[in-house]
Parts: sequence; C-alpha cells; structure tokens
Amino acid sequence: MAIGIFDSGVGGLTVYRTVAENFKELDMYYLGDTARVPYGSRSKDNIQQYSLECAKYLIDNFNIEALIVACNTASSFAVELLEETFKIPVLGVVNPGALQAVRVSKNKNIGVIGTRATVRSESYVKAINSISEDEIHVIQKPCPLFVPFVEELMLDHPATRMVAGEYLNQMVDSGIDTLILGCTHYPLLKPLMKGMFPDINIVDSSEVIVEHLKNMDIKKNEKGIRRIFVTDESPAFEKLKNILSEDIPVKRIRLEPYCG
Amino acid sequence: MAIGIFDSGVGGLTVYRTVAENFKELDMYYLGDTARVPYGSRSKDNIQQYSLECAKYLIDNFNIEALIVACNTASSFAVELLEETFKIPVLGVVNPGALQAVRVSKNKNIGVIGTRATVRSESYVKAINSISEDEIHVIQKPCPLFVPFVEELMLDHPATRMVAGEYLNQMVDSGIDTLILGCTHYPLLKPLMKGMFPDINIVDSSEVIVEHLKNMDIKKNEKGIRRIFVTDESPAFEKLKNILSEDIPVKRIRLEPYCG
Repeated sequence: MAIGIFDSGVGGLTVYRTVAENFKELDMYYLGDTARVPYGSRSKDNIQQYSLECAKYLIDNFNIEALIVACNTASSFAVELLEETFKIPVLGVVNPGALQAVRVSKNKNIGVIGTRATVRSESYVKAINSISEDEIHVIQKPCPLFVPFVEELMLDHPATRMVAGEYLNQMVDSGIDTLILGCTHYPLLKPLMKGMFPDINIVDSSEVIVEHLKNMDIKKNEKGIRRIFVTDESPAFEKLKNILSEDIPVKRIRLEPYCG
Repeated sequence: MAIGIFDSGVGGLTVYRTVAENFKELDMYYLGDTARVPYGSRSKDNIQQYSLECAKYLIDNFNIEALIVACNTASSFAVELLEETFKIPVLGVVNPGALQAVRVSKNKNIGVIGTRATVRSESYVKAINSISEDEIHVIQKPCPLFVPFVEELMLDHPATRMVAGEYLNQMVDSGIDTLILGCTHYPLLKPLMKGMFPDINIVDSSEVIVEHLKNMDIKKNEKGIRRIFVTDESPAFEKLKNILSEDIPVKRIRLEPYCG
C-alpha cells in the first residue's frame, strides 16, 4: 500500500517521520510545495488550488490509496474538497488533533497554537465544538516566530524560550490542561514546551494519524519505498531533513496547474 | 514621471518609504509579490521568471520610466536581465549599497548581512570588488531571523536584541567599520543596531537610491500618484504598511506568466 503526504514545505516532515517510524512497510511519497511556502499567509482560493495540484501529482504518479494533508492551513481549507475531487481517504491534521485534545482534557480548557492563518480560520475551535457534546473552552494564540525558530533548528535557544514564554505563559496561567500543536513545525519544540510546562498535555496530530492508519487495512510490503519531492530548492528543507532517521532521495519537480 | 518598485513582499516598503518621502511629486507604483514571497529561498531561474512577471506588470500598466528592484534576491539575479528585456533604467539595491559602503569605510573592513540566499550569492562581495581598486575585506553573515522579527514589528524586543548580538558581535569584534543592510527588511532594525553598535556606519541602500534619482531628470507632477499592488492577501503586508506616513490604496492583482 502507498500513501501520499503533502505539506506547503518542511513542517510536514514531522508527520512523515512519525508515520514512517511506525509503518516501515508502507510506501510513502512526500511532497513539499517549497516553491510556494508558506500557505499560512495565502488566501483560501489559492490554498485550495495549490492543494489540488499537490494531491493530483501524488495520485497521478504513485497510485496512492490514502492522502495525508500534513499542513494545518491546507487541512483547514481543503480536506473535504480533496476527498470529493479524488475519491480516496484524505486525513488532515486538524480533526485528529481536535479529537485527541477532547479525549485527554480533563478540565475542558484547551489551548490551540498555530500560525496566524490557522488561528484566524478557527478550524480547531470549530472541530472541537463539532466533536464534543460538553462545553469546552478553547483559547487560541498565534505563534508566528515558532516556524522560523524551528527552521533555524533553534529548538532550545534562550531567545526561543523567551518568545515561547511570551506566547504561552498567559494561556497556561488561564488554566488550560491541554495544548494542541496546530502547526506541523511545532512538534520539534515539544521538548522545550514540555520542559517549561510539564503538567500540560501536548497534542501532536501525527500521533493520532498513526492510530488512524493502524485501523486501516494496510497491505504490507517487505520494505516501504520512500521518496521526497519538492517544488523548489530550499535551505530550510535541507536543514529539517536532518530530523529523519533515513536518508531519503529528494527530487525537485514542477506541478501542473489543476484545471479539473 | 512615474517609477515602479517591486519586491517579493513587504520589505521593499522601506525603499518605497524613503523614495516617497524625498520625491513627493513622483508617481510611484509598488508591487509586492506576496503570493510567492520569500524569493530568498527560491532558485535562480524561478527568481528571474518572477522578476520578469513583476516588471512586465508595472511597465504594461503604468508606463513607468524607471524601475527599482527593492529586493536583494531579485537585485542579485535579475537587474541586468530586466534592463536588457525592457530597455528602461533598472536600479537594484545591491550596487548602490556596495558603492556607499566603499565610500564610507575608512578601514576597508565591511560587513554584509542578509538572507541566506543573498549571502550565498556573494552579490555584495562581487559588487564591492568590482567597484574598489583597494583591497577590501568583506565579512558576511546570514541573519535569517531578522525578517520574521521585523514582520512581527519586534523592532526593539529583548529576543531580537539577543539574536542580533549573536549575529553581529563577532563581526563587529573582528573590526568592521561599516555594515551593509543587505535585505530591505533590515532598515527597520537600524535604530536597534545603531544603539548596540554606535560606531559602525550602517548602510541602507534606499538612501543611495534617492541620490541616484536626484541625478536623473525627473519631471515633476503637482502631487505624485501613489498605488500599491499585492499578488495575495498578507497579514505581514497589512502590518508593515503602518510604517508609511500616507494611506495608500492597496489592490490585489494576478500576474500573468512572462513568455517573452
């Protein structure tokens, strides 16, 4: 069985990594749209168009049977559209994260951090409210500097810690017991945040996606084929690729406009 | 007389601002390619293609008589191409910055800061060496976190100061007397840097561009028309637009592929 994963750039490698480590026998094709990263600051129509182009590339070329949208922005705007368009299962990162947070929160006070676009879309707030019958209090906070800190691999730097305190202290003081990492870059800051706030449940969607996949009927190959594609050269990609335990070939490709 | 200015996004607004304040009578059309920002991490062929598309839009629509490329990355790769293609004067930010640094440096030790792409291109090193007959020692340092700090308007924040120290202390200690701001975002950090390093000459290309324009034969209008165009909505653009003293209309446009 083959699955495709796409992201606007490098953040989705955290999802790729978690899935790849749990399913050694799965063929996995990752596409990072590094020519148009970041999606987080683009408009909805552009994000949907780019998502269609990414999905089409993976579907046309690798006969994938399921697609993971490892980008919060694209997950917020394009999961249903992709499922309707291509008729294969499409897993975003928003619903799994919301589901897990509702499961683990005891006091029903959940925090969500992400890019400005993810926060503005309120996608986690909507997902949490549609899942839970209880009243849940959700506090959101955009953390725009976390992506550059991660891309610089400043994962335990005093400046990162200072900014993380400014972003998160007030939220934690307000009484949340659970924090959703609403951006696929953020799992690399999980150790820092866990050190700063040891009592908070930190929710990383990729761990929930692994559970989902375990429930799917995955045909096992002897050893999964692994390939990574990018739409442009990218220093951030070269740097973040070091988080992977395997050395996967990376190829630059050009996406075609999706015209239905 | 009308001039066009383009940048990959918002940084070029610092250049726009300096020129606009010095030439109230000039018609100025600014284009920020916010749908494809940042150019700094793209490949040379993509940067050239995008630059052609931006220039063509301004030339076709507003009959501009000169073009300012207010983006270091595009200045490094596309100024000559644009001049050959469109046959109008094209001013980048690299040569004016290099020229000014050579003029003001007494000890011939010049520092250059910019994005990774600008530093890797060595465009300032080449420009300085082609200008000066003396031997000049150039030290470069990429400062990738300065752009996000500026876009968050964290212009005097302790984290910005901490990171600025890490980026610049060693360079200053090595004996430079002049520092080129090789990224159009950085002039907004000039007060911070001037406070940290009061003895260093800080070179902002836009001030040199103003001198160039003063030497051109500029026909004066009563009051210049001012317009800003962007290729996508952008929270960073909304935020940075506040540095301008006038309220300029902003319109979202779509660029056509440049096919010669």
